[in-house]
Amino acid sequence: MNHTILLNNRPAGKPQLSDFALITEEQPQIQSGEILLRTSYVSVDPYLRGRMSDAKSYVPPFELNKPISSGIIAEVMESNNADFSKGDYVSGMLEWKEFQKSNGTGLTKVDTTSIPQSAYLGVLGMTGLTAYLGLTEIGKPQKGETIVVSGAAGAVGSIVGQIAKILGCRVVGIAGTDEKVEMLKSEFGFDAAINYNTTTNMTEAIAAACPDGVDVYFDNVGGEISDAVLFNINKFARMIICGAISVYNETSIPQSISVQPFLVKNSALMQGFIVSNYATKFPEAVKQLATWLQEGKLTYTETVVEGFDQIPQAFIDLFEGKNKGKMVVKI
Amino acid sequence: MNHTILLNNRPAGKPQLSDFALITEEQPQIQSGEILLRTSYVSVDPYLRGRMSDAKSYVPPFELNKPISSGIIAEVMESNNADFSKGDYVSGMLEWKEFQKSNGTGLTKVDTTSIPQSAYLGVLGMTGLTAYLGLTEIGKPQKGETIVVSGAAGAVGSIVGQIAKILGCRVVGIAGTDEKVEMLKSEFGFDAAINYNTTTNMTEAIAAACPDGVDVYFDNVGGEISDAVLFNINKFARMIICGAISVYNETSIPQSISVQPFLVKNSALMQGFIVSNYATKFPEAVKQLATWLQEGKLTYTETVVEGFDQIPQAFIDLFEGKNKGKMVVKI
Repeated sequence: MNHTILLNNRPAGKPQLSDFALITEEQPQIQSGEILLRTSYVSVDPYLRGRMSDAKSYVPPFELNKPISSGIIAEVMESNNADFSKGDYVSGMLEWKEFQKSNGTGLTKVDTTSIPQSAYLGVLGMTGLTAYLGLTEIGKPQKGETIVVSGAAGAVGSIVGQIAKILGCRVVGIAGTDEKVEMLKSEFGFDAAINYNTTTNMTEAIAAACPDGVDVYFDNVGGEISDAVLFNINKFARMIICGAISVYNETSIPQSISVQPFLVKNSALMQGFIVSNYATKFPEAVKQLATWLQEGKLTYTETVVEGFDQIPQAFIDLFEGKNKGKMVVKI
Repeated sequence: MNHTILLNNRPAGKPQLSDFALITEEQPQIQSGEILLRTSYVSVDPYLRGRMSDAKSYVPPFELNKPISSGIIAEVMESNNADFSKGDYVSGMLEWKEFQKSNGTGLTKVDTTSIPQSAYLGVLGMTGLTAYLGLTEIGKPQKGETIVVSGAAGAVGSIVGQIAKILGCRVVGIAGTDEKVEMLKSEFGFDAAINYNTTTNMTEAIAAACPDGVDVYFDNVGGEISDAVLFNINKFARMIICGAISVYNETSIPQSISVQPFLVKNSALMQGFIVSNYATKFPEAVKQLATWLQEGKLTYTETVVEGFDQIPQAFIDLFEGKNKGKMVVKI
């Protein structure tokens, strides 16, 4: 028998376990041209929250009572497709199922002999691409500039900070626990890090950590933390709006300070970033990330949860900041 | 005798007449290399409000008890400078004085025989340059796209809309009276216009006026009007943040909806625009604007107030929306 996780309810505010349903179904049977896949790693990401609502967005919403999908690494168990062999590992957007079939469209074969499977969901996957392309395409950091990263201990943030260091910038991270703050400095080489949960005045703390002001802000969180950064931006600052995890679960329209006067005063730029818009740049970006990884200039942390039935809880835990680095579920 | 207008107080909220002082002083005497100027037209502009506060901004604040300066057209009355002759007219950033002397730095001679003096403060001056360069450099409008302009009946907005029409866009203006709305459509060729003072649901009104959504938003006002536009933006929308007149007089930090989730969902861009950052493009831009003006493709409206002592009131009236098009004071 096979297991699948469906969207049972559209979450109202913070997602709950009851928003998901684990069902049992028949094993899929493959036809000519198809392959049978067994899921080995599942990526859980904050952006999936958006797809659980039915609001208009950049990707269509998940359908109720249908399987949720996300980035997945899977092993080919049977193949009726000449492009894939039994034992191959593939990466792609797949459904939250233990077993599923595919005709191979959208799947990429991955080398799991020299690189761990989960890296393809993280530093060499959407996470790393988001960090690299968001930072370089919108942030355009120059050597000697100061970069602030929120959600800095998260999957994207920790890579953003390391890349900015490689590019010669001063890097300041914002995270939610002393342990994360310590990790940013000791493991990822951030110049400074701020625990927003123990800091009473974030505006002043950012000013202290950024004596030359903020040139680039990689924003994963939105809300009050981002407001505090605005008070510290320099002329011509670039703000990459990559996510707004602080407001994804709000049921009313979130309010904050008006950004427009800050943008005018500083001739500053704020741009929403969706990695899929930059698909033509993926091959070059993955090559650069893999080079840095092999040179030891880039490292990553992941939080691995085990068990197919733990996928919903792992996803929910993202919004409590329980992950360090990329959150994946090992099946 | 000569008259000068000084900054008497930094305005708290909306500027008042008591924030300005009219004083009488001696006529200036020119030395070698200097010219004596008699002011003929004074530009009053919303951005001057920012310079009356002492907050950090893109231009230094005005000093208390010192003359205010803005764009001025003046006639050369006497000249000890080989570059200027008696009877020349010049344009430049000058002080609010009936008479003043200058060594000529920063002044541009203007042809007042074929073009009215005040046009150099408007359509061929900072106003026209702001409209043209903000729209083209940040907005990058494409033929067939939809553009919304707030403060549309103002000096900048009315030119933005006309340029967008020349470029083949659908143009929707937002203004504050039925008379202005009518003028936008009949005089400036806007496709639609909305009176925000008589419209109960701006979000719906914008949706109705923009059946294909909003691709470019030229924002002169900020606040609730801009919030309503956000609900209607298309993927890859560009928002030129040119001014925020709705909040210039607020004494606390203005709040509004969080823009970040809208930017992420739509891969949209919001950028502060200050015309002085684009100085290298002024000659080409003025040439294009003058061509359109002479071809009759571009027209302009101005509100002319008469009398040197009326400058402060004309400035204050900007925040009540009493001007149509460029507000100037004729001396």
